[in-house]
This record gives sequence, C-alpha cells and structure tokens, in this order.
Amino acid sequence: MPVFTEVASSYRDLRILPSRAPALPKLKAPSTSPPGQFEVVVIGAGPSGLLLTLLLARYGIESLVCFDAKPGTLKAGQADGLQPRTLEVLKSLGIADEILQDGCHMSEVAFWNPVPTPGIERTAFVPDVNVAARYKHEVTIHQGRIERILKENLDQYAAENTLRFSHRFISFEFQEADNPEFPIVVKVESTGPDGSTVENTYRTKYLVGADGAHSGVRQNMGLKLEGETTDHIWGVVDFVADTDFPDIRKRCAIHSSTGSVMVIPRERIATGEYLTRLYVQVADDINLDLDNACENSAVVKDLRQKRAAITLEYILNQATRVLAPYKIDVKNGTTVDWWAAYQIGQRMTPKSSASDRDGVDRVFIVGDACHTHSPKAGQGMNVSMMDSYNLSWKLAHTLHNLIPPTTNSGKNSILKTFEYERLNVARQLIAFDSKFSSMFSGQIGGEDSSVKALTHEEFVSVFREGSGFTSGCGIEYGDSVLVKNSRDRNSSPVTGSDPLSGTLQAGRRLLDVKVRRYADANLRHLQDDFPSTGRYRILVLASDDLLNPSGVSAVALTNLCDIIPQFPSSMVELVVLHPLKERFEWTDLPPALKKHCEMRFYGCVDDNAYQVYGVPEASGALVTVRPDGVVGMIDHLAAYGAVQSYLAGCLVMHS
Amino acid sequence: MPVFTEVASSYRDLRILPSRAPALPKLKAPSTSPPGQFEVVVIGAGPSGLLLTLLLARYGIESLVCFDAKPGTLKAGQADGLQPRTLEVLKSLGIADEILQDGCHMSEVAFWNPVPTPGIERTAFVPDVNVAARYKHEVTIHQGRIERILKENLDQYAAENTLRFSHRFISFEFQEADNPEFPIVVKVESTGPDGSTVENTYRTKYLVGADGAHSGVRQNMGLKLEGETTDHIWGVVDFVADTDFPDIRKRCAIHSSTGSVMVIPRERIATGEYLTRLYVQVADDINLDLDNACENSAVVKDLRQKRAAITLEYILNQATRVLAPYKIDVKNGTTVDWWAAYQIGQRMTPKSSASDRDGVDRVFIVGDACHTHSPKAGQGMNVSMMDSYNLSWKLAHTLHNLIPPTTNSGKNSILKTFEYERLNVARQLIAFDSKFSSMFSGQIGGEDSSVKALTHEEFVSVFREGSGFTSGCGIEYGDSVLVKNSRDRNSSPVTGSDPLSGTLQAGRRLLDVKVRRYADANLRHLQDDFPSTGRYRILVLASDDLLNPSGVSAVALTNLCDIIPQFPSSMVELVVLHPLKERFEWTDLPPALKKHCEMRFYGCVDDNAYQVYGVPEASGALVTVRPDGVVGMIDHLAAYGAVQSYLAGCLVMHS
Repeated sequence: MPVFTEVASSYRDLRILPSRAPALPKLKAPSTSPPGQFEVVVIGAGPSGLLLTLLLARYGIESLVCFDAKPGTLKAGQADGLQPRTLEVLKSLGIADEILQDGCHMSEVAFWNPVPTPGIERTAFVPDVNVAARYKHEVTIHQGRIERILKENLDQYAAENTLRFSHRFISFEFQEADNPEFPIVVKVESTGPDGSTVENTYRTKYLVGADGAHSGVRQNMGLKLEGETTDHIWGVVDFVADTDFPDIRKRCAIHSSTGSVMVIPRERIATGEYLTRLYVQVADDINLDLDNACENSAVVKDLRQKRAAITLEYILNQATRVLAPYKIDVKNGTTVDWWAAYQIGQRMTPKSSASDRDGVDRVFIVGDACHTHSPKAGQGMNVSMMDSYNLSWKLAHTLHNLIPPTTNSGKNSILKTFEYERLNVARQLIAFDSKFSSMFSGQIGGEDSSVKALTHEEFVSVFREGSGFTSGCGIEYGDSVLVKNSRDRNSSPVTGSDPLSGTLQAGRRLLDVKVRRYADANLRHLQDDFPSTGRYRILVLASDDLLNPSGVSAVALTNLCDIIPQFPSSMVELVVLHPLKERFEWTDLPPALKKHCEMRFYGCVDDNAYQVYGVPEASGALVTVRPDGVVGMIDHLAAYGAVQSYLAGCLVMHS
Repeated sequence: MPVFTEVASSYRDLRILPSRAPALPKLKAPSTSPPGQFEVVVIGAGPSGLLLTLLLARYGIESLVCFDAKPGTLKAGQADGLQPRTLEVLKSLGIADEILQDGCHMSEVAFWNPVPTPGIERTAFVPDVNVAARYKHEVTIHQGRIERILKENLDQYAAENTLRFSHRFISFEFQEADNPEFPIVVKVESTGPDGSTVENTYRTKYLVGADGAHSGVRQNMGLKLEGETTDHIWGVVDFVADTDFPDIRKRCAIHSSTGSVMVIPRERIATGEYLTRLYVQVADDINLDLDNACENSAVVKDLRQKRAAITLEYILNQATRVLAPYKIDVKNGTTVDWWAAYQIGQRMTPKSSASDRDGVDRVFIVGDACHTHSPKAGQGMNVSMMDSYNLSWKLAHTLHNLIPPTTNSGKNSILKTFEYERLNVARQLIAFDSKFSSMFSGQIGGEDSSVKALTHEEFVSVFREGSGFTSGCGIEYGDSVLVKNSRDRNSSPVTGSDPLSGTLQAGRRLLDVKVRRYADANLRHLQDDFPSTGRYRILVLASDDLLNPSGVSAVALTNLCDIIPQFPSSMVELVVLHPLKERFEWTDLPPALKKHCEMRFYGCVDDNAYQVYGVPEASGALVTVRPDGVVGMIDHLAAYGAVQSYLAGCLVMHS
C-alpha cells in the first residue's frame, strides 16, 4: 500500500505552463497610457510586423498595438524560405521546433546545364549552405504557417487586443506641441463586421511601418522605393510533381537551351505528399523600364496584359521544355496549390526612419516597405524579419530607459544604428539579387548572343560567394556605439581570419559551438545561452591558467563580476568557456565564477571552440555580445575596463 | 514596382496549421454510437490515462471518453523523470520538443561514499544512460507539465468533451445480453459546480482503468496489488538549493555513515533558478509488514503517526548530516516547492485484463493500477505511459477491424499480448526496484551489522546493469503473434550479439541511427520514419548488390511492393537502407523503390547503420517493425514470404 503524505507550495502549479522569456527591467514605470495612446504602434501583420510586435511584447512593452488592413491572418503570402540565420534567431526565441520538424530542409543544390544533344545534364552538387552555421540547410515552409506560429506565441505574451485586423493605416503626423510624450498622431480606419468604417485617431511614442511594398507609412514619410534594375518575367507554381527528373527533392538551378527553371523542394503536406515549387523563366523576355512603370499607368496596363497571357498551362509547358528529356506533370488526383506570374525589380528606400523636431528617430519602416527584390534567392521574408529583430531591442531599451543619456538620442544614438545597419544590408540584398537574378536569367553556354553567355563556373561561384549573405550568417554591421572594431590587427586577441567559419569578428553574429557544461556534464549549444531576451552578454574565453588565482583569467572574472552589477539588474549576463583538459573542482576556480554563472560555464568538445573562434588557449579573450547575438567588441582578458566602457555606451549605470 | 498576379487553391490555407498524424483506416464504418455509448471508456487522467486517450484519438477513435474524479488537471503529481525510451516515444508523437528544451537533462551520475575521517568522497562518475539510445540522458520535469502537453495535444485530436473531470468511477459490469456490441456497463458519478452529484450509466466496448494505485477498476475486477517487499521510510523535497556540494546539478547516489541521499537535478524555473530534488533516507528505519498494513487499520495508523513525525526540517537536517562536510540549505528568499514522506513497497497485480463471456479481453488496467514501487529509479510515469502505448494500437486495430479473424480474439489474440508483454515488464520493474531500493537503503562500507554491507562496486554494477531496463531501451517482449524470434541462431541474418548497442533483436525497439536520405541529401534520424501512427513498417537493409536488377535485394523489393498492397491501404510502409558508397541514379534502382519509398530511402553515415544493427552489407536483412517501434521479426532478404506471413497474422488481407 502506498503510504504518502505531501506538502506543496501553491505557485508550484504554475510550473506546468510553457517557459516564458523574462521581460526587460523598466527603470521608470511608464506613465499608464490612457486609451488610444501606445508606446509603439506597428502597421502590418506580415512576418516582419508580427515578429516585431512579438519581440516588443516579450521584452515587456505592454502598451502596444499592431494594425493590419486585412480581415484576418494572412493567406496570400508566397514567401517560403528561411535562412540558417533566421532559423538560429527563431530557435533563440524557442519557436523553431515546428518549423524544423515539419519544414523541408534544403541541404544540397544541383546545377543542371545544357548538353549539345538536346537536353540537360547535372554538372554539380553543391551544399546549399557554404558557411559555418548551427543549421546547415535552409527550410522551406508555407509563410502562413510561420505567421501562425508567431501569432500563437504573441498570444502568450501580449494583451488580447494587441493584434487588430480590418484596421487600415491612413496617415501619421508629428504633433509634439500638445502631447510631447506621445508625439505621433496615427489615423486608422477600422471596418466593422457589417462593412461600415470608422476613422480612429491614436497617439504613440513610436510608429513602425511593416506594411509591405506599397507601404502607406513610407509614402507618408515622403519616401519611395528607388532603383533601376528590372527582372525578367517569371512564373512560379507550387504543386505535387509527378516526374522522372532525378533531383526534384533538391534545390536545382537548371539552365537549358530553352530557358531556366529553379526547383525549390517544399514541405510534406497532409496527404503525405511533398510540394514542389518551380520558378520558370518566361521565354519571351519583356524588358520594360519599371521605374517608368510606376508612374505610367499605360505601361502598367501593358505589363498586366502581357502577364495575363501567362497561364498555368504555359508555366508547366515551359517547365517541361526546359527539363526535357525528363517529364514533369501535376500528380494525378492533385490540384495545383498556387501559381503566379511576376516581374519584380530590385528597389529600396534611401532612408528607413523619420525623426521628430528634436532629431529623435520616431518612425521606422521594415521589410518590404524598405526593399523589394526577386524571390529567387529566398531572402525576402528573412531580411524583413531581421529588420524587425534589429529594431525591436533598441526600441525596447529606449522605452524602458535602459540607455544612457549619451546614446539615447541624437546622431550617435542607439536607435540611429537601426537605419545604419539595416539599410546597409538592404543595399547588399539589392546588389546580390540583381547579380543573381540576371545571371540566373542568362543562358549558360547558350548560342543566343543577345544574352551574355555565362560559364557554369561563374554561376556556381556567384552562388557560393553569396552564401555568406544569403545564409544570413555573413552579415557584418559597421562600427558604431554598438560595434567596436579593433583598428589594430596586431593587438587583436583573435588570430584567425575566417569569420564565415566562425572566427570572432565584431559586427558579426556569434557562431554556435557545441560545449559541455561543467556543472551537469550536459552537451549543449552555446547559442542557447544567448536567447533573444534583450540582454547583453559577456563571453569569457578563459585562458589555460584559469586555475591560477592570480592569473589573468581569474583577475578578469573577479573584476567582471564587480562590473556587471553596475548595470541594471539582469541586463548583463556572463558566459564562460574554459580550455582545460584536466579534471578540477569548483574550489579550484575563482569563487565569482560559480556565483555568477554556475550554469553558464563550459568546457570544449570535439570542434574545439577556441579553434573555431580563433582564440589561442594561452591568452583567451573577452567578447561582448549584443542582445541580437552580434559580437559588439572583442578584447584581451586584461581589458575588462574596455568591456565596462563599451557597456556604459549601451546601458545606463547605477549612479 | 512589384507586379504580381496569383491564383491559389482554397485548401492551401489549411497548410498553416500544425501537422496532424493520419488516423488509421476503418474497415467497417463504426455504428454511430448513441449518446452514452462509447468505443472506449478510460478511467483516470494521469499520464497513462491521458496518453492512452490521446493515442486512441490520434488513431481515429472518435467515440471516446476519459473520466477523472479530480475537479481539473492534476496538480499533485510528483513523478518527474522521463527515460530515454519514453523520450523516443514522445518524439515519435511530435510532442517531445518542449520537454527536451525546458527539462533538465541528466547525463551523468556521481557516486559518493563514506571516508574514514567523517565525511564523503566522490568515488566515480558514470554516464546516466549506459545503453545506445537516441537521447543519452534522462529528463526531469514537473509531471503536471507533461500532462498539460498531453492534454493540449489531445485538444487537437479529440472531440471537445472527451476529457471529463469531476466524474468518479463507481463500478462496471458485463451485460452482454441486451447490447452485445457495447457489453460493458459503466457507472460514473459526476459532481456539478454546486457540489450536487449525479450517477450516470454508460455503455462501452472496452474499458481501461488508468486510475492509480487505488484503482476502482482493478478492485471491480477482483484484483489486488500483491507483494511482500517493503521499503524504508524516505523523505523527498524539491527546492532551490544553496550548497557547496559540487555535484548538485548531477544525479548523485550518496552513501555516508549517517545515511543515504539521492540528488535529482530538476528543471530551471521561472525565476531563472534551478530546482533540486533530494531523496533522503529516514535514519531510524521502520520495517513493517506492508501486506498486513493494507488489511490492518491499526498498523496503518501507526505508520501514519511515525510518518507524521517526519518534518521538512528533519529531512533537510538529515540531508545536511549525510552531505557533511558540505553545507546544503534552502536558498535565501525561496520557499520549498514540495516535500513528502513515503514508504512504498513493490507490489503488482497478477493480471491486468478481464474478458467477456466469449473470452475477449474487454477491460484493462494500466500504470499504477497494475504496479507500485519506489520512485527512486525514476520508473513510475514511464512504465505507466508505456503500458498505454502498448495497449493503444492493439485496441485501435481491433476496433477498426484491421485484425484478421485468426488473431482477433481468443488465446492468441493480439489484445492478449498486452497483458503478456506488460505484466512481464511489471515483474522486471518490481524485481529491479526491490533490488535497487534495498541496496540504496543499505550502507556501503558501513559498520552496522544489521544491514548487509555493500561494496561500492556492487552498487555501481547494479546501476549499470539495470540501465537496459531503467532506460526503457532494453525491454524485450517475448514470442507471440507479434514477435517471431528465429529459433536458429545460425540461420539468422544478424551477426551481432549486443542488442543494448543496437543489434537487431525481435521483441526489442529499433534503435535510432543517423542516415542520409537519397532523394534530398538530408541528414535524418531513422526513427523519424517510424512515427507512432499505428502503422507497421518493413525496414529493408538492402545488400550491396542492390543495383543488380536480378540480385536478391531487387527481387525482395519488387516482391514486397506487391505484398504491401494486399493489406489495408497505408497500414504497411516501406523504409529502405542501402550500404552503397558509389554514386548511382534512380534509374539504376528497382523501379518499385522510387514508387513506394522515394522519401524513405537512405544511405549510411558515420555510425554505419549496418554495423550498429549487426547486419552484413553483403547479405542484408528484412525487418518488420510493429506500430510501437518494436521489431516483430527479422529474416533474410529472400524471405519476403515470411514477412507476408507475419503481417497476415497482424492485419486483415484483401480477399
């Protein structure tokens, strides 16, 4: 007979719930916003708007709303690709599991080229991801599914009415005079269930336009998407394929003498079958000046007519022509999931923020509102979401009064780094996409002299070299208050020189490595100690004299543990790696270590972290990591004062 | 300007939802159950009852209800350990992610023993899991959280009112005469919000008691928990520890001259702190006859009084005495999460099923209703859930008329294998727990002659040898219609002899191996092609002459592809491994392969699957795997006829 008596604390029952990310501390209680006044208003509930709203809610912004003109969750989205870096970020938010489990993993790319006897042949297999990354593949999955996951997570963090559909943005303007704390007036038209519309006026501290290529926020800022590059007309179709083409489950770049096709394998669907996406170049190229098209409705009409001639049948027939002698068809008993014809140029805005009369950035645009481009490199949703990821913690730190006066406003403010960092990425995106698209539309080894013939090697080399950018893992932010690059290579604690393989580099994201935790011998991913909770971290790569109480590592750790409490509680976390092979006890270590990071203290495993990061075990290094996982600065173990200075530029200190 | 036209099919919008496991086919439409009549009634919504209900719902049983006397989701559960095999099963249901992400991973065990100078010393670190497994650790996490995850998944699959709290089981009886299709009458008392009670009568085809150690269903079957072993009195406490004991984040078995303590590290909680569980042996042993205690209220009363003397203070003080010279205390500013005192013997039922007048098993008990034992080996919740896992698909196949007449009822019926297989596990559980508990309560190297002194080596050896059982990965089911062991070792296609390392063995679960999919070059876990959807699978380990169209592999594959359609649609799936190192094309392979398993065809990676499974690449093997991932039979590639015979015993064939 079981004999049992027990006593439980009441809060124990809460532990059945999913884990929550901790909100940021608020240094000044926000004035309770009266109805209609928000700390942040987000326009647009696509991937970038949803992610931004979610991140702000997770960081603890309670007075928050996201308006979208659509009547409900997006159903028309066609983006489907998630880059390795986006996957790392979703993982750092604890929302990558379903995507990784059910999405299609693209591990390899097959290149197919024409052969003299009519037909095509496979020229090479190349890994899809050519840089070091936690996930060595991209994932393709329905955009609507990603939005559903973001929305479900938002429901866990935000107040009930945060996401408001059927609310169309009309305009914003600054009215600092009558309400300087909430200086922006936003007009929004809501549509009731009966179709009647009401115009509402809200006030907000910050406004973010995530409202797509036709962004009303951007137009209200007086900005246009600019650029002159154009793209060929392409058809795109999602379907279950019946084919003898051997590489249908791999990403393929196919050039034949009759045109180009890109194969994008997609996820398994409920029937147990697998979707395939084909991008099919429309053979009869139309090269119109899209810049004029924007202004000239006759040209737009002409374009529309030409596109109207492109049918599903045409797309599938053209795919068959390119893939010949292989056959490809819609699988019997299935219907085509989705298809479209498009012609998109590479265009971007010259600015992505607007400031109030004091020069404080108050209005921002993210995602397609800033940059449009062809979908072939699978970048759109990723760059858009990463815009939001970059902006969100800077906004939250500002709103929570966590930023010191020196960098709180003005030219060197932390908020200014958003435009600086992300417009630079948009520029690279536009440049890469122009190159990739036009190369892809060109013929390889073709006879047509009107198109510049490319060698297969040139194409593969553009693909490989672009991997740093297209994977998202090679993005590098320039110097600012948030990124301090050591000018002098000789004085750097880092000896490696290959940041794409993991060498530490200020401005680039910290690569994941596998490590073994000292306290519990668990094998862990180091990136899991850098979750996206809006905190800064100091990563100490201890030197091999860690056990020496007066060694440089012990001194650094002791001093860092004094520095950390000078900043707002919980805002700076300590993570420590050691290179020691011998066994040791807690009592052999600086006492500060166990006290501050008992569960964030690691030894190395096979892919030695020191080697990957380019740090000699004899000398070690101090690495400051921003809330978005980007390395802010790297210095020698003795330079803990420099860490303090860096952090003092980012975070307010206790007086 | 983006120029875009698109056409989408309406069902595309459904693809935003989470993936669902496909229900089993139903060979005869079930007669629509009138209100109050169910295909299955489950009593008890603990881990085993919830998992059973969830599995039945996922398999497609719609007429289903689960009653629990409690007013809401369980809050009193104290089990916290999940074995590697349980994790594999949860993964196969797609519900392991949160548990793996947020639970505490126990990777290593530390053994501590007395030293002559008063105190203790660490004698050894041993891996927590000593057998091959997909997860090389256990996970500890609050039982209530596991139940919440099961319940949330149930909400996705079952009708709204499937789970009914405040419904207390009263009794059941067979009344075959007036309603032979629903022969069991179940009486349940429901309590309304106002406290009023109503007695309801339901009818069901099958009844399962998952109603715990005091199971009413078991009592109604006339069964008792039997057994004579007793356990010492132990205290258990969950709290945030403040300690200088170095191994507090590892599982520890600590023997000192003043008693024994087991440390179980627990998950991180919302405060960012980590829980610790301690099992503390109560020094003043009480050895009462628990068998008599059941019958004798005076003895029970005496026990209760003795336990009442055990306070939280006593438990913590005793822990401090055992751990001395290390200090351990409740962390300042935190309160103890939960504590209890218990004394549980090892007891089990002699039977776990009851049959109707035709000998058809109709009533079953699972979990604690069948077996109780001490919690120290972390088995309870696991063995209980695996009872349900074993029963669920057998019940669903029976209800969906998927079982052939020969094994549908009677002594050799598939339903009979539930009791045969799981009572045997319960027996091993009781035996192991008796041994482990009494060894653990004994002193190592102690002076006390009343307790048999153990050597440290004996204890570690029991721990290690028990790993096959305690991990759940070494469970082996005996011969039956579902498990066909080749009698003749010489004729076996398997050359290895170490099933705990992965050697194929009928009756044991198929070990996970990493493999690379041919179609898309993805690195995958083979177990992910054996999801718990209630289907049988044939795993072909092709021989190295696979490319020879008249070789044994090609012939086997072609024949298997003819055999599979003889069984109900979707009920038998084909998975194929190949050992080839050279590159080849789909056209080099038997055409049946691409047609039947384009996305379930794999090559080997580093931990060569053939070697792990003990199958020579030159000869290959055919492996039939049951819906629960257990190998049903293994034979030579030429023996596809034996596969057909095996399946014909499990599944009805098209006439």
